[in-house]
Amino acid sequence: MTQSHISYEPGTLRLLDQTQLPDRVVFVTLKTSPDVAQAIAQLRVRGAPAIGITAAYGVAIEAHTLSKQGLSRPQFLAKLRDAATQLVAARPTAVNLAWSVNRMLTEADSQVATGTALSTVVASLDKLARAIHDEDVAACHRMGDEGATLFTGRVRMLTHCNTGDLATGGYGTALGVIRSLWKAGKLEHVYVDETRPILQGARLTDWELRQDGIPYTLITDSMAGHFMQRKMIDAVIVGADRIALNGDVANKIGTYGLAVLAKAHGLPFIVAAPLSTFDASLANGAGIVIEERSPDEILTFAGARSAPADATVANPAFDVTPADFVSAFVTERGAIHPPFASSVAKVLSGGAYAQAAQ
Amino acid sequence: MTQSHISYEPGTLRLLDQTQLPDRVVFVTLKTSPDVAQAIAQLRVRGAPAIGITAAYGVAIEAHTLSKQGLSRPQFLAKLRDAATQLVAARPTAVNLAWSVNRMLTEADSQVATGTALSTVVASLDKLARAIHDEDVAACHRMGDEGATLFTGRVRMLTHCNTGDLATGGYGTALGVIRSLWKAGKLEHVYVDETRPILQGARLTDWELRQDGIPYTLITDSMAGHFMQRKMIDAVIVGADRIALNGDVANKIGTYGLAVLAKAHGLPFIVAAPLSTFDASLANGAGIVIEERSPDEILTFAGARSAPADATVANPAFDVTPADFVSAFVTERGAIHPPFASSVAKVLSGGAYAQAAQ
Repeated sequence: MTQSHISYEPGTLRLLDQTQLPDRVVFVTLKTSPDVAQAIAQLRVRGAPAIGITAAYGVAIEAHTLSKQGLSRPQFLAKLRDAATQLVAARPTAVNLAWSVNRMLTEADSQVATGTALSTVVASLDKLARAIHDEDVAACHRMGDEGATLFTGRVRMLTHCNTGDLATGGYGTALGVIRSLWKAGKLEHVYVDETRPILQGARLTDWELRQDGIPYTLITDSMAGHFMQRKMIDAVIVGADRIALNGDVANKIGTYGLAVLAKAHGLPFIVAAPLSTFDASLANGAGIVIEERSPDEILTFAGARSAPADATVANPAFDVTPADFVSAFVTERGAIHPPFASSVAKVLSGGAYAQAAQ
Repeated sequence: MTQSHISYEPGTLRLLDQTQLPDRVVFVTLKTSPDVAQAIAQLRVRGAPAIGITAAYGVAIEAHTLSKQGLSRPQFLAKLRDAATQLVAARPTAVNLAWSVNRMLTEADSQVATGTALSTVVASLDKLARAIHDEDVAACHRMGDEGATLFTGRVRMLTHCNTGDLATGGYGTALGVIRSLWKAGKLEHVYVDETRPILQGARLTDWELRQDGIPYTLITDSMAGHFMQRKMIDAVIVGADRIALNGDVANKIGTYGLAVLAKAHGLPFIVAAPLSTFDASLANGAGIVIEERSPDEILTFAGARSAPADATVANPAFDVTPADFVSAFVTERGAIHPPFASSVAKVLSGGAYAQAAQ
């Protein structure tokens, strides 16, 4: 994109409202932390890395607000923590949200503890939020290039949801790998799941791929098996919202079904995610909270009714794919291959990691 | 339903317009065969058995029209055949359409050959079309009751698309089995796939289940794997549009993916269809023509844009599930169990068939 979908000036966040795409390109300006939390809950910005970045800016905005209220230093920290809690609660599944907010709080704590002036604390929080944003963009580019090395020849990829510019600071996770494959001349085609109920694939991924001139075909989620059966797909690549230490992956609802289909057809199933998506506190996926969203997302679409108004609906926004369905993770520190029980921990600890693609 | 969605008076067909459900209950009145073909192509009526019945009435209507044109008997037959060809071409995948139209043409041929007056031929075609309709309702009830005997205890079923009253002459195929399970006190819950792109599950199956007071939960197609993984589904039951002699099944897009998921979770995958859905001319599913429908079905929803207007789209309306994913077929002549290579032919030939549920 020529213009970033997340941009920040001290105390003011500007977000591309993703709920209005592809029909309208509308930016919203946010000047309070509760407004940022609401924008995240309403999916005006979504995608695990992107909401992590957005929430970091939310903490920075709150610091600006609080610094003008004549608070004591402990009061400042306590109120900053309250705002942070609200930001983290906006969406429960993606761990990047808690990860980035905690980085911001740790920075605030340590600055305040050393007696720094609040105005300086505020400036350093602005700086850290920008750094989290910049780091994510850099991580995406490394991930993309690392992921592209996993493939030889020209491949036809299937992807789910949106994992591109709009889901990250820029470039993307799974879509970053697709972009790097395209640049390397190794991409033949992308099949894009529309991704019900919010249609992030149809609305957002299409929009990004068209801007890059990457050839794609939009399909309904229910068509993935058909195109695998017809041997028109070589690999599946998705992003992630939270990854446990054993390699279990929470991601957009429908991911698990794709993983089962990929395995049944002998296709690689790749998960691209920055290290911030790994939850070092989680041994396996059983502990991942799955966000249940409003029935309205399924009962209506853009004001049109898609089911009886009082139909009984389930709307889990994510599912958990067990680690043994994952062929490899792609991170900014390279690919992680099975057995994940040892390889994930090794990469998270920052240890040297190199292994030939299987 | 208190009022049938397909009703016929000599020369006039009245159809419930399923494209307007669940918002509006609107009937359309059709007095020409081309109008009937168009209603089928536009999905105002859909479901393999229902379009077979509708097309039979379409032939009967054409006979009324032609009988008033002072045609010779060979001209009458030739023009009736033209109209029949157009009706069959309205949708290519469901075999019931060709099956019922051919029954009507065979009746016309034999009546004309024996010198019957055209007015009598017309009356006998009205009678045969009604018989095809009545036979289907009776077959659905037998299928439902036969299918219910396959299950013991209280089961939680997943179904796809609409296979109920609206897809048949009445009662339903897969939904008929669900209705019979409910009557027998053996049904705990139904999970209803919304069934993109046309949302027959969300719009039609919900609507029918609510009328019957059967407990259900509407889910997106992409959630099926999640609920199987969570052990909330005991079996999958679907209808069919065409079944080859070896047991390969063409059905609504997404069916194959469900079959793979059912197998991966060790769940029975049941296909309920009348004998008219079996294509005795087809050794296996490779020869089944898959209807490709308009991109608009995916690009827009009820007038609202769901993807960029010029997105590249694939829209196969059906997929083919290989026979080895099918646990059993349920027909009006009882269940058919593997090995299908022998069991299907035996049932189609009308031979006695009885085998313990596996």
